[in-house]
Formats: sequence, structure tokens, C-alpha cells
Amino acid sequence: MVVTKLHETGVAVMRLDPADLPGKALMSADYARGDFEGHLSVNGHVLSMGGLDSVWVRRPGEPAAHAPRPSVWLTAETHQALFGMLYSASARWMNHPRNADQARLKPWQLRTAHLSGFAVPPTAITTSPRLAQQFAKEHGDVVVKSASGPPPGDPALALPTTLVGPDPDFSAVAAGPALLQRYIPKRADIRLTCVGTQLFAARKAAEPGQVDGRYGDTGHAWEAVPVPVRIGRSVHEYVTLAGLAYAAFDFAEDEESIWWFLECNQGGQFGFVELETGQPISEAVARWLSQRKGRRTT
Amino acid sequence: MVVTKLHETGVAVMRLDPADLPGKALMSADYARGDFEGHLSVNGHVLSMGGLDSVWVRRPGEPAAHAPRPSVWLTAETHQALFGMLYSASARWMNHPRNADQARLKPWQLRTAHLSGFAVPPTAITTSPRLAQQFAKEHGDVVVKSASGPPPGDPALALPTTLVGPDPDFSAVAAGPALLQRYIPKRADIRLTCVGTQLFAARKAAEPGQVDGRYGDTGHAWEAVPVPVRIGRSVHEYVTLAGLAYAAFDFAEDEESIWWFLECNQGGQFGFVELETGQPISEAVARWLSQRKGRRTT
Repeated sequence: MVVTKLHETGVAVMRLDPADLPGKALMSADYARGDFEGHLSVNGHVLSMGGLDSVWVRRPGEPAAHAPRPSVWLTAETHQALFGMLYSASARWMNHPRNADQARLKPWQLRTAHLSGFAVPPTAITTSPRLAQQFAKEHGDVVVKSASGPPPGDPALALPTTLVGPDPDFSAVAAGPALLQRYIPKRADIRLTCVGTQLFAARKAAEPGQVDGRYGDTGHAWEAVPVPVRIGRSVHEYVTLAGLAYAAFDFAEDEESIWWFLECNQGGQFGFVELETGQPISEAVARWLSQRKGRRTT
Repeated sequence: MVVTKLHETGVAVMRLDPADLPGKALMSADYARGDFEGHLSVNGHVLSMGGLDSVWVRRPGEPAAHAPRPSVWLTAETHQALFGMLYSASARWMNHPRNADQARLKPWQLRTAHLSGFAVPPTAITTSPRLAQQFAKEHGDVVVKSASGPPPGDPALALPTTLVGPDPDFSAVAAGPALLQRYIPKRADIRLTCVGTQLFAARKAAEPGQVDGRYGDTGHAWEAVPVPVRIGRSVHEYVTLAGLAYAAFDFAEDEESIWWFLECNQGGQFGFVELETGQPISEAVARWLSQRKGRRTT
């Protein structure tokens, strides 16, 4: 969707899968005379680093993964060469990998959400069965989540957010950290997509008692909703602290219309929201990416 | 050496190998009421995140590596939990992993060195045999280096910096990026260690024609030398741009006493320099680490 929009407006786009370097792609960077020049070439198309305005990071492959003789060492060397060159350019990033890595840490998200003024459900992350027990006792209804998302390579082991039953056995917490959160009885799921300074909020009504809106079909659709002023301020604060140009926030809306911060995914999908609500998110991304150096407004 | 000095001055130290979590170590973080509390416990010693002044990152193991049933997923969850909690604390880092990751990229180092005003030997990083050829022709004597260091697990494949012979065959460059650099005929190796704002420079005379001072014994020892004012300014500029509290710079000193920037290792060793020169580097690290919140001077 984004690439189509960029093509429509005549913006030059180069697509690179780092897995294709070396091979289909070629790179060369020159650090001399106090200056830096770099070139990237894919299928005969050449891009100069001086002409690179923005980088959109979209599930990149592992450097050198498609090489005839891949190895851990070749991946490390190619990662060094490619990202070292890209970091040397004065492009802006959606999102810079350095900030993206930090923003993936869920406990850090919770802290940053607090600092940004969001309502955040009380949460504990622990390897202590005793403290897990204590947290569940103090907060009544509690859900358990995975901190890092579905296990790689085994989607069957994905852990949907799950309500903890009465009198639970927390002994397994000692074997791996658990993320426990006070259950927010919700009226709706909110997905807020932030692109630069543009915000798009969408709402999907929840079935009573539904815990994880990502799994299963509720029969409700995503609908565009306005962004409350206070939420807008907190979003701005959050992405500034995190150094993110793009972020997808998930909230639970409770019976009192409070939006509770659940998580912020720096690489979250937006296609499904755009398709259901008609919100011009891909256009906003394309516009952000196509701003030229020295002519940036947001 | 650093821990001994910290013990001598009565500063409380907790040592944690992330590989020991969960297991020997226990963690618990609580995000509630707009605030954050976290605890780390190792062998019964408990550290509160509120009392954590600084974190020294020193070749940490992989989270959960010592677990009875280690897995990629358990490592991801434990990494999330531990680093998410540590990033939530208001401690200072030597060095923050986010900045350390960026600072490891050698091409980025060269660009940052340029911006900081260092003399940097002309360097090319390329997967194009033709451009490698062209660089070698333009610059005469050229060395080739690994960008990412020795291949993990196979030190026998380590590539010392090597002078390229006359009329070289660069065809293999297409299979993996090569880092080529103009050869600097050097009189000495310089190691400059930066700890906060304190600088320690050491010099070791080189044998004529010696290319890589890290391999082989030259019979010369490291000696403390003063830091030229201009170099001091550039070091300060570099570590500020890079966000580093600790950095070990390698320079080549040429016949005209110019210090040429070769690399900056954010996790570089300092023990060998301290032992040979008597420079109080470990004491400087200990002093930096033991500064308390709100009483920081550097």
C-alpha cells in the first residue's frame, strides 16, 4: 500500500532485502577526505547515500541469508557493512533500529507509558512464585501474557492473554518470567496508529468477557474514532521519549471510557485498520517517507 | 580490578550473569500507581532498582542460558523481563546496550570519527570487486580488515589486518564485504582509554613495517603519554555523539606524529594498559560507577 502511494506521487523507491546482500545487491561506502559517500545497487538500480531521504524498516531479512555459502560470520560482516553505511547517511528512519530495539521491551514500554501520562494497568513481571501469588491476591482478576510474543518457529505455542483462574498455582513462574496484569473489563479495543505527528484511532467493540481481541472473531468491525486531547498529548510524549516515527498503540477501553495502555508496537500492522476504517494511514506513511531533506515539516 | 576497588571503598556491588536468570537469580518488577519498583536477587542478596546507581556491562551471558530447559523463547522472555526492568531504572550505564550496539558498527565509527575531527585513513567497504580494485589503485598501499572481528567460534579464521600485495585479485570481494584502508606507515600504536571525561593515552613503539600491533610481540612496552589537546576535544565530541561512558580508541601514530583513528571499541580491554603503564584506569571506572544519583560530577 505504501509503495503504491509512493509510486503514484513519483517518489523514487529502492527496495532492499538485506538477505540479498551480497548477491542481487551490491554496496560500496567510501570514507575519505573527511566526507562519506555510499552507494547501494539492487538489480542495476543505484542509490547514492547523499540522495537517501528516509529508510522504512519493514521486516528485513538477515544480512547475507541468501548467500551461496551463508555463515554467522558472513552475516556479521554484512550487517556491519550495510547498517554501518546506512547509519552514516543523514536519512531519517521509520524506525531507527537502535530505538526500535529498546521500544520492543515491554517492561520499558510500561515505564515509558507511565511517564507519558497514560493509564496503565498494574503489572508485575517476575520469576518469583511468591510475588506472583501476592500480586494476584492484591489485584483480584489478573491476566497472564507473554512478554516477547509468540515463540519463534512454533506459533502453536503462542500464548494469548489469559485470565488467571481462582487459586492458581504459580510454581512454574520460577522456570521463566511471567507477566501478570490486572484484568481490565473492557467495552472495546482501541488501536491508535501514530505516523510522525498524525494520529489515527480506531475502536472495535468487545464481547463481554472477551480477554484477547487479537484471537477469534467477535463480529464487530474497526471504526474510526477521534483521539481524546489528553491521549494525543501522551502519545506525543511517548514517541518523543522512545524516538519513534511510527508506533501502533493498543488500549483497552473500560466501562468509564478510560483508555488503558496495553502495549506499543513499533512495527505494528496498520493494513487491517486502514481496510476496515478507510483511515489514510499508508498515505501518511508515504508522505512522511517522501519528505525531502531540509524540507521537513513534521 | 574494578570490583576490588569498589569493595575497598565500601560501595555495594551486585554481580549478575543474565545466564543465571531464572535460577540462581530472581527478579520482580512492579508497575503500578504511576510508579515502578523492581528487585533483583542473586544468591539471597537483594538489590532494589531505586538503589541502583550504575550498571557496568561486562561481557554478559545470554539470558536463561543456564536454565534447566533453555530455549530461544525462554531467552527472549528473560531478556525482555531483565533488560526491560533495568532500562526502567534511572541508573546510568557503562555503556547502555542501545548505544553500544550502534557504536560497534565500524563504518559508523569512521563517519563519527570524521565528524569529531579525527584524522581517518581513507577507507572503503564494498562488495564490488571493481570498486575495491579502484580504491587500491588510487591509494597505493592498502590493508584489508575484518569489519566485525574474528569469526565467532573459530579463532583460527581470525583475520589480522593485512597489507594487500601488488596487483591483487579482488574477485572474492563479491562473496562478502571487504574493508580496505589506506596503509598508515606507523611509528607507534596508541591506545586511548576514555572513562567519563578522564582520558588515558598509552603508546607502544612499532617495528618498521609492522601492520597489526595486536598480534605478535614487538619487544616494546606500553608507556603513558600525554593526550594532545586537539585529540582530547575530538574524543569528547565522539563519545558525546555516540552516547558512550567508556571507550577504547586505537590510533596509528605516523612519522609526522599524527594520530590516525583506526577504531573505537566500546567494550575494549584496559587491564593490559593499566598493568604496563600504571595508569589508574580501573580506579577511574570504579569512581565513575560509584557516583551516586544526584551527586554526579562527570
